[in-house]
Amino acid sequence: MNEITTVPHLTTALTGPFQNLERLILENQVSIESWFRSAWRQINAPFYASVDLRNAGYKIAPVDTNLFPAGFNNLNPAFEALCIQAIQMAVEHIKQPIDKILIIPENHTRNLFYLENIASLQSMIEKAGFETRIGSLMPDIDAPTKIDLESSKSVLLEPVVRDGDRVLVNDFNPDLILLNNDLATGMPEILNNIEQTITPPMSLGWSSRLKSDHFGFYQQVAQEFASLVDMDPWLIDPMFRNCGEVDFMKREGVDCLSKNVESLLSAIKTKYDEHNVNCEPFVMVKADAGTYGMGVMTIRSVDEITELNRKERTKMATTKEGKKVTKVIIQEGVYTHETWGAEETVAEPVVYMLDHQVVGGFYRVHDKRSASQNLNAPGMRFEPLAFDDCCISPDPNQDMDCRQNRFYTYGVIARLALLAAAREITSVV
Amino acid sequence: MNEITTVPHLTTALTGPFQNLERLILENQVSIESWFRSAWRQINAPFYASVDLRNAGYKIAPVDTNLFPAGFNNLNPAFEALCIQAIQMAVEHIKQPIDKILIIPENHTRNLFYLENIASLQSMIEKAGFETRIGSLMPDIDAPTKIDLESSKSVLLEPVVRDGDRVLVNDFNPDLILLNNDLATGMPEILNNIEQTITPPMSLGWSSRLKSDHFGFYQQVAQEFASLVDMDPWLIDPMFRNCGEVDFMKREGVDCLSKNVESLLSAIKTKYDEHNVNCEPFVMVKADAGTYGMGVMTIRSVDEITELNRKERTKMATTKEGKKVTKVIIQEGVYTHETWGAEETVAEPVVYMLDHQVVGGFYRVHDKRSASQNLNAPGMRFEPLAFDDCCISPDPNQDMDCRQNRFYTYGVIARLALLAAAREITSVV
Repeated sequence: MNEITTVPHLTTALTGPFQNLERLILENQVSIESWFRSAWRQINAPFYASVDLRNAGYKIAPVDTNLFPAGFNNLNPAFEALCIQAIQMAVEHIKQPIDKILIIPENHTRNLFYLENIASLQSMIEKAGFETRIGSLMPDIDAPTKIDLESSKSVLLEPVVRDGDRVLVNDFNPDLILLNNDLATGMPEILNNIEQTITPPMSLGWSSRLKSDHFGFYQQVAQEFASLVDMDPWLIDPMFRNCGEVDFMKREGVDCLSKNVESLLSAIKTKYDEHNVNCEPFVMVKADAGTYGMGVMTIRSVDEITELNRKERTKMATTKEGKKVTKVIIQEGVYTHETWGAEETVAEPVVYMLDHQVVGGFYRVHDKRSASQNLNAPGMRFEPLAFDDCCISPDPNQDMDCRQNRFYTYGVIARLALLAAAREITSVV
Repeated sequence: MNEITTVPHLTTALTGPFQNLERLILENQVSIESWFRSAWRQINAPFYASVDLRNAGYKIAPVDTNLFPAGFNNLNPAFEALCIQAIQMAVEHIKQPIDKILIIPENHTRNLFYLENIASLQSMIEKAGFETRIGSLMPDIDAPTKIDLESSKSVLLEPVVRDGDRVLVNDFNPDLILLNNDLATGMPEILNNIEQTITPPMSLGWSSRLKSDHFGFYQQVAQEFASLVDMDPWLIDPMFRNCGEVDFMKREGVDCLSKNVESLLSAIKTKYDEHNVNCEPFVMVKADAGTYGMGVMTIRSVDEITELNRKERTKMATTKEGKKVTKVIIQEGVYTHETWGAEETVAEPVVYMLDHQVVGGFYRVHDKRSASQNLNAPGMRFEPLAFDDCCISPDPNQDMDCRQNRFYTYGVIARLALLAAAREITSVV
């Protein structure tokens, strides 16, 4: 095991309830794993996912579940073998003969960080024993285009072409289409009704998915899990409300938004009182179909909603690739009380899964943000080495609060979000 | 990836054919992995196995496949997560709800090295999320017995008791019995006809298994594989003959033995000539149901068989726990042309698998033995760090002969032996 000298530490003073949650999860490891096994016998896990967690000390909760995860380049390289093995398992679970895999990435040619992710993903899938190519949906890519990366790797983007009921790149006729494009701008016509399996399914793209649907499924999973280990589900579940149509520019739907913000802030206050949490409640208002950390704001009082200035409203009105925001989710704000390094920069863990296996993660760190803000924003950086214990091996002989055990807890919460996503997929496919 | 300074190097001058074999395997990685995937869709892999390989330069072949592997304590600890994940997969493939696992170890209380293996295995199965206990079949163990180990771990051996159609230890009622006892002295009565699943099945214990059966299945697998990559199957397959009853003490069956030794030596010579191998042919005479490296001798000419002295005959006549040898396999001797360290001590790789995943390995090193001798003998030691690349990630951008690529080849050959074992299991269950 590599020795890591820096690892985020919890700065919260509220260690009591935190330790309770950790203790509960560690003491129930066997029944928790049994419960997960039973769950995965009934439903297939998504091919992959990443989950953003926030550890407030008094609660640990997922705040975003990404079914088209980028960032595989930020994982600890020591766990590459674990990823390769999990990819083999994910493909095995598709139960079709699959030898050739086409990755469809986001429409980026200049975002080299993102393309490093694609290069890492391609390399791992190849090492798992599959022929792997990258098919671009960008109109600009009309011929194979090689892009060199800082890591000295490169990616070859090839135009996807339709041939009857199949899509190809050049003479490469894939058995499986692996989406790493969240389809925020809609389902691409070229992929409609093809006979090849597309995973994750296109209906889970942000053109049709809503965060509020996901967190509805998560709420149900959290309740089942909480009754298994006998705790208040709130300790792992961020409450939320959602509104119908909202037009930030025309100020339409703001009444509903205000009403929901008020009711959610009050519900959080009630929970804080119940659990003796001495913090100021806040909510996150997010585009319900938002992605890339865009269209997100922190709200502490209902007045802030009515007093939004033009700049703030403009910022909320559109998300990735200029897509208009029409629906919002109001989510309980969960403080992140973890910090990184001597500067005590706020940090939040991101856990990566392939099939139903936790394969690593990293801390998202942002030195311009506070404990109550979205960290998924320009200026963030990643600290890939923290998760050297990879979340699957708790050690009952060590302190509850030691790195290995805390990371096991993170892996459990992330898998609950994964299970919610699996049910979400089943509901739409 | 950890940087390893010492790694065995090939001392053979016969790099030509070696590179050919490696090159073939690396070039065909995609079709090889596709072939394995197809094979594992049709048949379940054994729960676990270890395979002893010999790399002669001109050929790489398995010489022993152990279905009750010890030595998990000798694996690189950095790959523990890989083992845990593979254990989860192995249990998933049993397709029953399994929460509690009982390990049945060998009947050792003083072999602390062996018990370190049991402690490692138990720890990994627990970390995989299963309640795990150790049930001893030894009559001496009539109460729970804790044995402290050098690693500061300990094992708790508990007497196995029969309760109707089930076996228990104390109040622990397991869902699965994991055999780590090779049953060389027979199938234990207490396990007969129990309703719990026993894996690997008892019929694969050395009380009924024969090496010649295994190598019969392996020959078939090697032929299929050789036609996939278009090579002579001999490059990965040790030829063998077997005799009916042999009694070394009474000198019965020695004619058959001599005849077979002569015919095999001559067949090896033909192959050496065909492949321009400039080595002296030799064969290994082994107890066909032998284990623990016992009952094994190197034979270079048929005269050595007829001239065996009393000491040599006594040594061949019995194996583990005094079991009488009645059947022998005569196997083509494969030189090991790998050496460890500056002293050039002979070394052979041992590859470990859980389910159909390669999870690590080590070099067995013996400074009192030569390249044509059995290294599984008192005085051997293990070098666990060598396999830092864990055999599943070849890198086509590196030299054919680099560590990572050589280890991938070892993982392929080991999996061929695993597939042979899977067919062997199917044939007897």
